[in-house]
Amino acid sequence: MEVSWEQSVTDSINTIYLLFSAYLVFVMQLGFAMLCAGSVRAKNAMNIMLTNVVDAVVGSISYYLFGFAFAFGDGTNSNPFIGTTFFALKDIPSTSYDYSYFLYQWAFAIAVAGITSGSIAERTQFSAYLVFSFFLSGFVYPIVVHWVWSSNGWLSPSSDMLFGSGAIDFAGSGVVHLVGGIAGLWGSFIQGPRVGRFDAFGKPVPMRGHNATLVVLGTFLLWFGWFGFNPGSFGKILVAYPNTTNQGNWTGVGRTAVTTTLAGSTAGLTTLFGRRLLVGHWDALDACNGLLGGFVAITSGCSVVEPWAAIVCGFCAAWVLIGLNVFTLKLQFDDPLEATQLHGGCGAWGLIFTGLFAKKEFVIQVYNSGEAGVVRPYGLLLGGGWGLIGCQVVELLAIVAWVSITMGPVFFALSKLKLLRISIDEEVAGLDISSHGGYAYTTHPEENHPRFYADYMPIQGRNHS
Amino acid sequence: MEVSWEQSVTDSINTIYLLFSAYLVFVMQLGFAMLCAGSVRAKNAMNIMLTNVVDAVVGSISYYLFGFAFAFGDGTNSNPFIGTTFFALKDIPSTSYDYSYFLYQWAFAIAVAGITSGSIAERTQFSAYLVFSFFLSGFVYPIVVHWVWSSNGWLSPSSDMLFGSGAIDFAGSGVVHLVGGIAGLWGSFIQGPRVGRFDAFGKPVPMRGHNATLVVLGTFLLWFGWFGFNPGSFGKILVAYPNTTNQGNWTGVGRTAVTTTLAGSTAGLTTLFGRRLLVGHWDALDACNGLLGGFVAITSGCSVVEPWAAIVCGFCAAWVLIGLNVFTLKLQFDDPLEATQLHGGCGAWGLIFTGLFAKKEFVIQVYNSGEAGVVRPYGLLLGGGWGLIGCQVVELLAIVAWVSITMGPVFFALSKLKLLRISIDEEVAGLDISSHGGYAYTTHPEENHPRFYADYMPIQGRNHS
Amino acid sequence: MEVSWEQSVTDSINTIYLLFSAYLVFVMQLGFAMLCAGSVRAKNAMNIMLTNVVDAVVGSISYYLFGFAFAFGDGTNSNPFIGTTFFALKDIPSTSYDYSYFLYQWAFAIAVAGITSGSIAERTQFSAYLVFSFFLSGFVYPIVVHWVWSSNGWLSPSSDMLFGSGAIDFAGSGVVHLVGGIAGLWGSFIQGPRVGRFDAFGKPVPMRGHNATLVVLGTFLLWFGWFGFNPGSFGKILVAYPNTTNQGNWTGVGRTAVTTTLAGSTAGLTTLFGRRLLVGHWDALDACNGLLGGFVAITSGCSVVEPWAAIVCGFCAAWVLIGLNVFTLKLQFDDPLEATQLHGGCGAWGLIFTGLFAKKEFVIQVYNSGEAGVVRPYGLLLGGGWGLIGCQVVELLAIVAWVSITMGPVFFALSKLKLLRISIDEEVAGLDISSHGGYAYTTHPEENHPRFYADYMPIQGRNHS
Repeated sequence: MEVSWEQSVTDSINTIYLLFSAYLVFVMQLGFAMLCAGSVRAKNAMNIMLTNVVDAVVGSISYYLFGFAFAFGDGTNSNPFIGTTFFALKDIPSTSYDYSYFLYQWAFAIAVAGITSGSIAERTQFSAYLVFSFFLSGFVYPIVVHWVWSSNGWLSPSSDMLFGSGAIDFAGSGVVHLVGGIAGLWGSFIQGPRVGRFDAFGKPVPMRGHNATLVVLGTFLLWFGWFGFNPGSFGKILVAYPNTTNQGNWTGVGRTAVTTTLAGSTAGLTTLFGRRLLVGHWDALDACNGLLGGFVAITSGCSVVEPWAAIVCGFCAAWVLIGLNVFTLKLQFDDPLEATQLHGGCGAWGLIFTGLFAKKEFVIQVYNSGEAGVVRPYGLLLGGGWGLIGCQVVELLAIVAWVSITMGPVFFALSKLKLLRISIDEEVAGLDISSHGGYAYTTHPEENHPRFYADYMPIQGRNHS
Repeated sequence: MEVSWEQSVTDSINTIYLLFSAYLVFVMQLGFAMLCAGSVRAKNAMNIMLTNVVDAVVGSISYYLFGFAFAFGDGTNSNPFIGTTFFALKDIPSTSYDYSYFLYQWAFAIAVAGITSGSIAERTQFSAYLVFSFFLSGFVYPIVVHWVWSSNGWLSPSSDMLFGSGAIDFAGSGVVHLVGGIAGLWGSFIQGPRVGRFDAFGKPVPMRGHNATLVVLGTFLLWFGWFGFNPGSFGKILVAYPNTTNQGNWTGVGRTAVTTTLAGSTAGLTTLFGRRLLVGHWDALDACNGLLGGFVAITSGCSVVEPWAAIVCGFCAAWVLIGLNVFTLKLQFDDPLEATQLHGGCGAWGLIFTGLFAKKEFVIQVYNSGEAGVVRPYGLLLGGGWGLIGCQVVELLAIVAWVSITMGPVFFALSKLKLLRISIDEEVAGLDISSHGGYAYTTHPEENHPRFYADYMPIQGRNHS
Repeated sequence: MEVSWEQSVTDSINTIYLLFSAYLVFVMQLGFAMLCAGSVRAKNAMNIMLTNVVDAVVGSISYYLFGFAFAFGDGTNSNPFIGTTFFALKDIPSTSYDYSYFLYQWAFAIAVAGITSGSIAERTQFSAYLVFSFFLSGFVYPIVVHWVWSSNGWLSPSSDMLFGSGAIDFAGSGVVHLVGGIAGLWGSFIQGPRVGRFDAFGKPVPMRGHNATLVVLGTFLLWFGWFGFNPGSFGKILVAYPNTTNQGNWTGVGRTAVTTTLAGSTAGLTTLFGRRLLVGHWDALDACNGLLGGFVAITSGCSVVEPWAAIVCGFCAAWVLIGLNVFTLKLQFDDPLEATQLHGGCGAWGLIFTGLFAKKEFVIQVYNSGEAGVVRPYGLLLGGGWGLIGCQVVELLAIVAWVSITMGPVFFALSKLKLLRISIDEEVAGLDISSHGGYAYTTHPEENHPRFYADYMPIQGRNHS
């Protein structure tokens, strides 16, 4: 009963890789907080930042107590729909999972509610937020994780149950982003638009966020975090590929970072130019949203497609986002962060994209390593047949259905009980003053002195003060 | 004289782990800067950010020249109270320490003065800051490090000198946070409260920080950095545990990340709900401070307690913080960042907590690896006897005494020499204009145009400009 | 055809090290965005942040398609001036380069245009920006990379072509910073100063940036990123040094982090005190710029100098920066971010510094490993002869010439075609409103209520709302 040198080296390397990836994914929570804060009006900034903090702290407790168990609790009595062991990390570390794996998955779980919080921003009661956030990240999301990512989920590529393939949703275009987006769709739809968002004729009235710097800060932080989200999803980096001289997961991890970068960049650039054509100016916020849409879309197939395909992915994601934004405005649907369009729409496209462009060699390396000779279905357009694309569509439909039948009633019930939306007075005054004890930004009497915030010549000024 | 393959692999793995952890700890300096800036009034933002920059740059030079030597200079003439070799990194790399170890410890050293700068914010002369920061991070702090963390310090668990145990202060609830908090206590006490903080009847007047977004940003960055602070404190990740099949420091590192997360989250959540009951609203800033209090408290025992105990730790830390905040307000003690209460109070609680809840198995693995059969004292409540808790109390008292007899006189002398506090005029005008040549925020004449900072309809606007 | 265990371990370790370093370098893009945004007036904040986003997304596509090929495409038909293979990552992974190497180099490429964008801030047409950014990061910069960093570039220390030495520009004081700075010099010179920057008598009028908090945020993020930039430039960490018992690249990586920290800190501190003497107050922004100047300067020699030499490097860098700032003001040269002085001036000093202070032992370890007995030229002041310093001067001159003959005409042509600078009306109104559809900061009608942004007592307020 000793740990061998090889085991020690392997575990150390894989743990460093996974833990530091988890830390990066955690940064996405900060990214969401800044992106959301900057995208809402100043009077609601405190509220939306608190929701992001709450996602993290509530998610820690719920994912520890039962979320991780529902997702990965594959004991002897495991089933393809829900996990049943590892509550409160009992029996962790196991032979399959160490603490680092829990931490990595926790960072994913807290991101989901963050997506949804954008959709219902600026008009939701904080106590309603506590309820749905707990339910979404503690139950609805872990179930989907179990289906797709646990070794014996019914949609899992490890179990091969569905069409001899299983869905390939490597880092969660569907599992994370579509889940968050669909939850947001229902929340936002049931609440209706913000006061004043559409005029008496149904025309949209611009309701700009209060601080574009925060939006850019958040976007870059999300990009940084995505390097943990996608390349980190291999779980282990020290895995050699058969039939190569120098390739292994280290190659796949690097390629995933590259496809992620290319898809996001292409989508950002396409959105920038596309919106320039549509509205006549170069909008930094469009570029940011485009970037994020590209990242969301590539998240499913990032590990199994060529870099050139990632560019195709990003290009289409941009138009999905632009199109859905035009479409939802027509429908007078108001999602302050475009989370439904961005995470829902681009997430759905990402699932389909993988079914079309997944490359045979990469699918074998990432999902088949060790079992020589077995060939799995891969991208339809690359000749891989209908098995994979079929699974992708099934995952898409299953997620939409599951999130709708769980989160829809939750939002509907909260709404009927008058617990969902704040009053018009409170909405006009802002959530920060009505629920959170004060605004995010304060000036003080003495700062109204004309010299303050005014052009100022350093050396002279000293004599005056 | 060749480096073996095993040595190369081991050193590479441990260096990656330690250096990237150091980079994360460094991010805490940015976190402090943002947290502090957002928590003070706009007229003092530049000042407090400069103190954080100065902590880092002064600390680099002083820790290089002598701080590291005082802390870890264990030569042949080593003694249990102060280190005496490695000045200006002479003989580094040694057999014990490589450059990466210095960098990791440097990132800790600069954090200490950052804690204290919060306590004395908005009213301290910048030149006084330079003096105390240099003295605190270059001398007072390294001595405590030597006591607890060097291999032959009198409080060190490696030397086992004290009660056959030594204190377990894994990442420094005492060594870092209590030191910074007690220094802040003296600085803040000797200066007295900010002008206008208490009215004529001794009632506190709210003096809100100017930007809650910066507070949230800083808090999340500190959380991110704490993943380097606590899990990084193992120093080496490639160390197998005896009598296991697949566990080693990689397990401990992951568990430490989990206990850190759970303690912080529990404290954040408890503070949010506790303050909701006390003051009637959901305050994001309370949640942030609670989070940090939980992190501070778990920092001592993070590597040697079970996840469930971390939840206990965080829950109590929240009430320590809430209680001390009520208590200090009654005493008309004014610490703008609550650093005394948060780092001092929760840091002290963290030391005690470890003495109560440290688990036998983990204590052996982390502090005893290799010496089979030897059992050390562990948590009192888990049956580990009085040895450990005794050492924890001694460390607590020793730190309070040492910091008080060194920093107290420094602040007192500065105060007597009229070098500590700025004049009332300067305090009312703000430090930025009186000492730093201008405010942090500037608007320009043309920006007073009514269109600026006003709701704006994109396409129409273009025609006007 | 199997991957050996040793190969797998080596590749995994080196990939983790390189990829996470790449992620850190990427953070510098965010750092630049925040630093630049804070340093300009509010009316141009959106514009300059968009340029930073565009650098990243355009750079992704161009570096993928041809930039990486020009820089590292060393096929059989390789030449010392330009690379000719690996277009669109064809044949990657190769035996020399894996995807992680591309990602690391991409993060460098996007930084170059970011430097230049600072020089031409607040007055440049966005379409001009698109042109020069694409040309600079896709062509001008990669050529210089090929000269210095590819194995057979004419200035490369691997090829030893020049003076039996080649230039030592480890992480790119010249390749990155001088290139960006000289490009900025031409852009800024050809455009001329911002409207109102100098009065009728040629005296400079202060034109402070709008937000010092963003400047500090950006500076710290750049420092964080520099830990990827400099220590990451070893490329591989698992390389043992001959004739030692426990040293290898892991030692060099750590030492590089230390020299980087010391040089930046010394420069920051020197600038803070130097400017205090010159202008009479402690300016946080000076400390920030000094820090960055020190980092730029040490970037060339960081891996081959002793820590004490890094302090010398930083001290001189501070005076280079202070001196050039005084000098350029006299010339009525207006670079809003001081990018020419900081990246150009300190970058040039960095090249010279390495020629003076590179240590024999370290030069052998970093550039010679494996070839026992061969001694290369090293620092002139340490007795290493004129070979290295000669190469450093040649690199300096070659970069200045190359960037001038490529970027000079580009800026000149854009200027002649009236495509470079915006109109005075637009400049006074601000780029954000004239080109980007609106300002970065928005307030809303209801936020003009006197209670908003005013001191506010939490509990009472709730009754009013």
